[in-house]
Amino acid sequence: MSQPLPDSIPPDLFAARADAIAAAARELALAGWTPATSSNFSMRVDSEHAAITISGRDKGKLTRDDIMLVDMQGRAVGTDARPSAETALHTQVYRRWPEAQAVLHTHSRTQSVASRLFAKHGVVRVEGWELQKAITGHTTHEGVLEIPVFPNTQHMPELVAHVDAWLDSGNPLSAYLIDGHGIYTWGRDMAEARRHLEALEFLLACELDLRRLKA
Amino acid sequence: MSQPLPDSIPPDLFAARADAIAAAARELALAGWTPATSSNFSMRVDSEHAAITISGRDKGKLTRDDIMLVDMQGRAVGTDARPSAETALHTQVYRRWPEAQAVLHTHSRTQSVASRLFAKHGVVRVEGWELQKAITGHTTHEGVLEIPVFPNTQHMPELVAHVDAWLDSGNPLSAYLIDGHGIYTWGRDMAEARRHLEALEFLLACELDLRRLKA
Amino acid sequence: MSQPLPDSIPPDLFAARADAIAAAARELALAGWTPATSSNFSMRVDSEHAAITISGRDKGKLTRDDIMLVDMQGRAVGTDARPSAETALHTQVYRRWPEAQAVLHTHSRTQSVASRLFAKHGVVRVEGWELQKAITGHTTHEGVLEIPVFPNTQHMPELVAHVDAWLDSGNPLSAYLIDGHGIYTWGRDMAEARRHLEALEFLLACELDLRRLKA
Amino acid sequence: MSQPLPDSIPPDLFAARADAIAAAARELALAGWTPATSSNFSMRVDSEHAAITISGRDKGKLTRDDIMLVDMQGRAVGTDARPSAETALHTQVYRRWPEAQAVLHTHSRTQSVASRLFAKHGVVRVEGWELQKAITGHTTHEGVLEIPVFPNTQHMPELVAHVDAWLDSGNPLSAYLIDGHGIYTWGRDMAEARRHLEALEFLLACELDLRRLKA
Repeated sequence: MSQPLPDSIPPDLFAARADAIAAAARELALAGWTPATSSNFSMRVDSEHAAITISGRDKGKLTRDDIMLVDMQGRAVGTDARPSAETALHTQVYRRWPEAQAVLHTHSRTQSVASRLFAKHGVVRVEGWELQKAITGHTTHEGVLEIPVFPNTQHMPELVAHVDAWLDSGNPLSAYLIDGHGIYTWGRDMAEARRHLEALEFLLACELDLRRLKA
Repeated sequence: MSQPLPDSIPPDLFAARADAIAAAARELALAGWTPATSSNFSMRVDSEHAAITISGRDKGKLTRDDIMLVDMQGRAVGTDARPSAETALHTQVYRRWPEAQAVLHTHSRTQSVASRLFAKHGVVRVEGWELQKAITGHTTHEGVLEIPVFPNTQHMPELVAHVDAWLDSGNPLSAYLIDGHGIYTWGRDMAEARRHLEALEFLLACELDLRRLKA
Repeated sequence: MSQPLPDSIPPDLFAARADAIAAAARELALAGWTPATSSNFSMRVDSEHAAITISGRDKGKLTRDDIMLVDMQGRAVGTDARPSAETALHTQVYRRWPEAQAVLHTHSRTQSVASRLFAKHGVVRVEGWELQKAITGHTTHEGVLEIPVFPNTQHMPELVAHVDAWLDSGNPLSAYLIDGHGIYTWGRDMAEARRHLEALEFLLACELDLRRLKA
Repeated sequence: MSQPLPDSIPPDLFAARADAIAAAARELALAGWTPATSSNFSMRVDSEHAAITISGRDKGKLTRDDIMLVDMQGRAVGTDARPSAETALHTQVYRRWPEAQAVLHTHSRTQSVASRLFAKHGVVRVEGWELQKAITGHTTHEGVLEIPVFPNTQHMPELVAHVDAWLDSGNPLSAYLIDGHGIYTWGRDMAEARRHLEALEFLLACELDLRRLKA
């Protein structure tokens, strides 16, 4: 995309972020976590901008040209392309966590089913798994990892408000589910975001398995 | 296949359709949705003709030579090859939806099991999933997506009549299941048909998972 | 394997059979149906000989050199290699079905679990699935496909006797399970044997899914 | 890693062990058994040293440079790299079984879920499966394979003591689970360790399936 970038953003920087996003998207698509062109991915470019997937593209075939620039209010910058409908949830992460560099939103079957199953509780409480230690800030299997489940809506400001309310109440937050929809998580670099996503998928799948076995 | 095409059909057009069908078939076979040479795939060539898979071929190894031409009554055109037994279900879609360009029929385990489980209700009602939006015409997770389940038969005119009766009663139709068998869906191009199929597989799998977990 | 073949067997014929077995083994291993060096595969060479996998090799890395010749009593011919422990079950198929050209024995999780679940009935009865038509001789979903489940034993003659008794009672037989163990099936060529195996895996998996969902 | 090896260890020997570990790790990661940088792997180098994975690396991308040398007390030798937290469990195996050459610790979903489900019994008892024969020392499906489940802890000496107590009571041990965590198994070479791991994953998965089906 011959996108006229703002002068403050080196083209190489944008290209590197776009390539990293596209590579992650292709790998997550291969894992089956982005069915039917769903899911969206972003990386911070600077304090005022993020690179994010253009809406509706097949995530298994993503390239640099499927990534666009937005400002932290989620508005397209230097392009007529339409950003993912849920861009506001990405920029919220970058605004609230200055150290966040990558945000991943996927739709795996496990994530979607877990969100439906736990929606009535408003939260999934995960404990007793060694793999909780893969989430930054968790150093033992003995703690409890809380993943809130917010109601789904097509109106993004409602979801933004749910996330803000959770954070403003002082609860820690590494990731959240949206009912019938999927998961959001993030990290201080793409590797950490990927590790968080992979661990959360595993932990949710294990919790569902335990319920199937104990029913 | 050195197939004598009707003069009205440019050889390049037929070849392009055949290649697109074969590519889709190989990818769907890799996903495990076409066990034991089952499943069939087609694309519209013009208002009077469609390209469709020849019966009984291994879908994982399909090439252009495994695709033949049929007219909209399902008769072979310019070849002695035998079209898929269910050709009549494909040409029905092209007759009833002038905008339909591709029809996909697969046999995944999820599709087959869901068809058996919901056969007694005659329909699967899917609601509350964000991914319903991947089906053209659905713009929110709040609607209900109805996928009818028709009784299986080896006599195609009965199935054609079931589909016609559903449509003639004014119900919307994006896809249907056949009991103990598989799914049919379509789109205005191959990409849309693929997106529909992928979304339906996901939604049916999620519904089965919820039942396993709540039982 | 520089195997001194009997003069009556053209080296090219043995090599072709060995290559076909090795190729099938690698593909079935990739599908996860041959865990931990289990499973064995053979093809008829002539009325008196078959080519069969040598015992204990990793099926995911099989080559022509992992295949040996046996006579129809299961004795090694022209080699000191040890044939699979269950060679007698392969040669039984070639003796009882003159048209059989390939025998496949795998150990998928679905096959093993189904064998345990249905062992007390002595048979799995499969009906109502379109994919039954993939088994030669079955032309409709309305018939019943019976897959007997024989008790496991480390003493092969007992298993041979179970198979003989089933056949001698006049029951049709396309495949059988051994309790806690795996499946045997065959075909008039490797493609038919593969189609039978793939269809049986699918049908058993669907039957297990239905039980999970209806429990 | 330009690691100054002790004079007694030929560089080619260390490199061969490191390459074998990295190759096994990549294959096990591909199978999904090492989520989110978890799991660790080692091989004996000589009676006093083992090669083991450095902590926290992505197991899907492991190379020779991600492997370090430790002594049999688990201390880094000739490097500042930090060995896996659970190194003490590896070196215990090499101390207690002089013939052990490779130790594998993975975290598959099946292993983790089975460990939670059977933790209250302290052991998984596996019987009636042909694939038990893939575990060295087991020659029939009629025996019982016992896999103890030890409580998880972040304090390795407690786990070492649990394993010692099991062995000192005279029970045979081919593998053990840690609650909410994963599995340890080993072999007289990497191929045997891999065969053990693959068979144990299969057997645990089958046992979980039987429970789901009989519930």
